Amino acid sequence: MIEDKNQNKTDLAALGEFGLIDHLTKNFTIKQTSTIKGIGDDAAVLEFNKGQIVVTTDMLVEGVHFDLSYMPLKHLGYKAIVVNLSDVYAMNAQATQVTVSIAVSNRFPLEALEELYAGIETAASLYNIDVVGGDTTSSTTGLIISVTAIGTVDSENAVYRSGAKPNDLLVVSGDLGAAYMGLQVLEREKEVFKVNPNNQPDLDGYTYIIERQLKPEARKDIIELLKDLEVKPTSMIDISDGLSSEIMHLCKHSNIGCDLYEDKIPLDPQVISTCEEFNIDSTTVALNGGEDYELLFTVSQEDFPNIKANPNFTVIGFMKDEASGMHLITRAETSIPLKAQGWNALNN
Amino acid sequence: MIEDKNQNKTDLAALGEFGLIDHLTKNFTIKQTSTIKGIGDDAAVLEFNKGQIVVTTDMLVEGVHFDLSYMPLKHLGYKAIVVNLSDVYAMNAQATQVTVSIAVSNRFPLEALEELYAGIETAASLYNIDVVGGDTTSSTTGLIISVTAIGTVDSENAVYRSGAKPNDLLVVSGDLGAAYMGLQVLEREKEVFKVNPNNQPDLDGYTYIIERQLKPEARKDIIELLKDLEVKPTSMIDISDGLSSEIMHLCKHSNIGCDLYEDKIPLDPQVISTCEEFNIDSTTVALNGGEDYELLFTVSQEDFPNIKANPNFTVIGFMKDEASGMHLITRAETSIPLKAQGWNALNN
Repeated sequence: MIEDKNQNKTDLAALGEFGLIDHLTKNFTIKQTSTIKGIGDDAAVLEFNKGQIVVTTDMLVEGVHFDLSYMPLKHLGYKAIVVNLSDVYAMNAQATQVTVSIAVSNRFPLEALEELYAGIETAASLYNIDVVGGDTTSSTTGLIISVTAIGTVDSENAVYRSGAKPNDLLVVSGDLGAAYMGLQVLEREKEVFKVNPNNQPDLDGYTYIIERQLKPEARKDIIELLKDLEVKPTSMIDISDGLSSEIMHLCKHSNIGCDLYEDKIPLDPQVISTCEEFNIDSTTVALNGGEDYELLFTVSQEDFPNIKANPNFTVIGFMKDEASGMHLITRAETSIPLKAQGWNALNN
Repeated sequence: MIEDKNQNKTDLAALGEFGLIDHLTKNFTIKQTSTIKGIGDDAAVLEFNKGQIVVTTDMLVEGVHFDLSYMPLKHLGYKAIVVNLSDVYAMNAQATQVTVSIAVSNRFPLEALEELYAGIETAASLYNIDVVGGDTTSSTTGLIISVTAIGTVDSENAVYRSGAKPNDLLVVSGDLGAAYMGLQVLEREKEVFKVNPNNQPDLDGYTYIIERQLKPEARKDIIELLKDLEVKPTSMIDISDGLSSEIMHLCKHSNIGCDLYEDKIPLDPQVISTCEEFNIDSTTVALNGGEDYELLFTVSQEDFPNIKANPNFTVIGFMKDEASGMHLITRAETSIPLKAQGWNALNN
């Protein structure tokens, strides 16, 4: 008798589209009072009593944004939500709802999608948001996840990319470059695995950077902290494509220049040691690596006392007039123009 | 010298992701006062002074939902917007904004995306909505379009699938089955073209049904008409997967049954003649064809005088108690159980 190795795998077509959505979302609970009607009608119905609504959307494509050979599906579901929430927080808003659309090929059994949705639910639970809609369809090849996130902000509190002024301080949360270096380690282990599938990777020295790649967090805590500190940034953006590219967005939208100090860029020791191991310049990684999902913002100088002693923040430069341009001041105190060499999904 | 046949084709990677979004959306204007900030920040910012917000999302996948060998990209962009707006109108809401995310492989030059966005802009203009965000990324194979539509409705006017009552009349706008038969004609012409590429298709007798497939419209006019007639449906859904499947949704969500009369189902003469030509039963096409994007709704009997003489509406049945079940009353006056054999993206 031939053993059925797929005995625990359920074919997606067996459930049908509606059965699948019902099955995957049956454990989702409504947490936000603004959610009047979630999944289950032509559209979700939301009611916000005041303020403004923010809306953002991001699409993750297999083979472009993720590699399932080292990205567990549960982590992928989690990350797909987090990267969208990060954009909501970058508006100084609170995230409230998401919709999730997925296209999957038949090679994914139901159990794989259950893992994906378990990650989505974990993120929804942790960030206190509701999954209020979505679409489930088939793809001819890989997996595609499209998430739209909705949030709310008092009209006077929304922070745009465009509000920075000369002399404002440039501040970043957390540390940079870890997600990129985590990816380098995972890619290396994948190549090792291809040569010798019996080799067990030893990832003990890379736990932080791998977690930053596989399970990034959106800085909801920073938005709350800024509120507690009574600091309203003059401009803000999240770091998805690399520090350099994001600084240039702030400068371009605000019509100003900037000096960024290389020696101020916050790096985790694991990033520094892994950069040495891979013989990569850590500043280049921080500038262009991307996927940090930290918040980059500007504050007026009078707010400096409120943030200076806080370990969550690092002042990495200051804004100048537009004619001064955008520069990196190196450790050797030379000034070189900033370039955006960040991750570009269209070149991959 | 070898002629460069691609002299008017621009490589997407040459623009970069941000350049591409800027280029594709530069002609988009803001039409809604509720749009505070459209494309160009981490998230769009919207402000609705009252009422509820509806949110819906749909993903279209090449090779599953569309075939570029007969679907022009401009029409595809138009259709991607329309199918989402249809879900907004099915809540008795007014559509106000959309976000559009696309994943494209390198085989698409810039000019192809310009066509796609021209269709998106045409739909946005006609339906008076703003494109307020999106994501542009690469795919390893085909084209994927994910649209999220947002609308607004006064709290007391939202119509769900769940409000139908026994004895309510079942009403449909327009006519059914045309989009499916248009697809059959296009598929046939594609096969003919494969055999003889010089054959010029004669589609004169199929203009209506082909337009219904390639350029469907969402019934914004019906929502406005119902408002003018002071008729608030007790339940409503749009017909994307076929009449049968949608009736079953209304019955299931409202916990009731239904009798649908075969002889009342509205069919265009071109659908009837094309069904005869293809030797397909026209009732089967109306019940299961899908992509009609008409509105299916129920009204209480006291509203019958308001809709009975209106050429936009056809009463096709009435609702019964749950124990009576869901039935089709055939022309021969036999009662047979309704089945949902509608289009299922996961079986294709």
